[in-house]
Amino acid sequence: MILIAERINTGFSEVKNALENRDPAVIKDLARKQTDAGADYLDISLGAASKDPEDMVWLVGAVQDEVDTGLCIDAQKREIVEPALQTCQGDALINSTTAQEEKMEELIPLAADYGASIIGVTSDEDGSPQDVAGRLQLASTIFRRADSAGLEPDDLFIDPVAMPLKYMQEQASNLLEAISQLKNLSDPRPHLSLGLSNMSSEASERSLINRTFLVMAMASGLDAAICDVLDQKLINSVATAEMVLNNEIYSDSFVETYRMD
Amino acid sequence: MILIAERINTGFSEVKNALENRDPAVIKDLARKQTDAGADYLDISLGAASKDPEDMVWLVGAVQDEVDTGLCIDAQKREIVEPALQTCQGDALINSTTAQEEKMEELIPLAADYGASIIGVTSDEDGSPQDVAGRLQLASTIFRRADSAGLEPDDLFIDPVAMPLKYMQEQASNLLEAISQLKNLSDPRPHLSLGLSNMSSEASERSLINRTFLVMAMASGLDAAICDVLDQKLINSVATAEMVLNNEIYSDSFVETYRMD
Repeated sequence: MILIAERINTGFSEVKNALENRDPAVIKDLARKQTDAGADYLDISLGAASKDPEDMVWLVGAVQDEVDTGLCIDAQKREIVEPALQTCQGDALINSTTAQEEKMEELIPLAADYGASIIGVTSDEDGSPQDVAGRLQLASTIFRRADSAGLEPDDLFIDPVAMPLKYMQEQASNLLEAISQLKNLSDPRPHLSLGLSNMSSEASERSLINRTFLVMAMASGLDAAICDVLDQKLINSVATAEMVLNNEIYSDSFVETYRMD
Repeated sequence: MILIAERINTGFSEVKNALENRDPAVIKDLARKQTDAGADYLDISLGAASKDPEDMVWLVGAVQDEVDTGLCIDAQKREIVEPALQTCQGDALINSTTAQEEKMEELIPLAADYGASIIGVTSDEDGSPQDVAGRLQLASTIFRRADSAGLEPDDLFIDPVAMPLKYMQEQASNLLEAISQLKNLSDPRPHLSLGLSNMSSEASERSLINRTFLVMAMASGLDAAICDVLDQKLINSVATAEMVLNNEIYSDSFVETYRMD
């Protein structure tokens, strides 16, 4: 399972304040903790707090001063993404393009040029389709475009869009079915990823919903997620699901072993 | 989700002692607690402690003195199953036949005669096949035989056999795939059930393994399980998975709501 850690995001006030004050301690601490918890990538998001490329570059630098974990550049505009890619010293993942022509045009060649991976979200100018077929169609559009640009399937993460269970309950089973069908999009296949926390948006029992849905999605074929890796129950569930799927070898200490991987 | 509660089993010493002493209090207490926890059926097993039909009849009577929950008669011989069915006043589920000719011959007509449901385990004289195709073949054998005997798909529970993760790790992903394919065995389809606790046999973190595997199996199409309904974390996970699958309506109190159903 490829874990993309969600906490370096100005939606969290500590991150917003750290950015404004150019105080790297909080950022480094989150980078370290999330890496220790098993993150493969650290998502870095300016959120609504800033549109300044220099802010993104500063965050990337602060993180890289502490860890060499892969970075997930959470921005949709070339003028923010490109400087971040230039600064990034390790693995980079762009988060994200949609299936809109101008977005793909802007971001997919950037991934190819910088040897980065990219998340392709199944939405377009009409929004995110809620049925299985609509998700598959947009995934296919993104896949073909990435393929033409020379990206390998392994460089592409298709995100079929998690919607809040509280408000769009029927989405969740559609989403599981979409994941199950997306496994057959190509061979080898692209990664399948989700922004997990959106599933439990404004719901009660958020952690329970997140971890239950995540392992169900893993059973359907999901192999990546943007999630709260500091939620230990979530990581315990992932460790168990990985063992069930025969991706990790059983040992009596499998929970600890997974965290130390 | 059809929950079959596993605790009235002489493998638990309190049950064995209660049976030997003809003391119904422990049995009634387990019947009540498991019913309150959401059990649809109460499994009743003599285990290795007895082969006496009168012991089974006594257990059935003790349970029925307390609750009117469905009963899952856990025995594989006509001389034990039939008296239990004669005593049973509500829904009955026979646990279980295999795909062996003589077992099907003995038990499937009994289900038809008494209006009971029956669990068909995908094993035969050669044991339980570990691959997907073998499980499907035996499920198909049992399904055809049940169909010929006049049972509806709704009366049949196919159990594709959970093996201990600790010793046969690759089984778990085969099992998920088998469940996924068994959904298409017929339309309408039979129920798909598992003896869940076997999955975590002798493993550490048994409850974590049980609940994680169970929701993964639910995502694949499982709709019944013999399990420990007194494991509250397991039931919370089931409640969440049922909501994800759109089988239960979201409410902020969904965990409590499910338990009260």
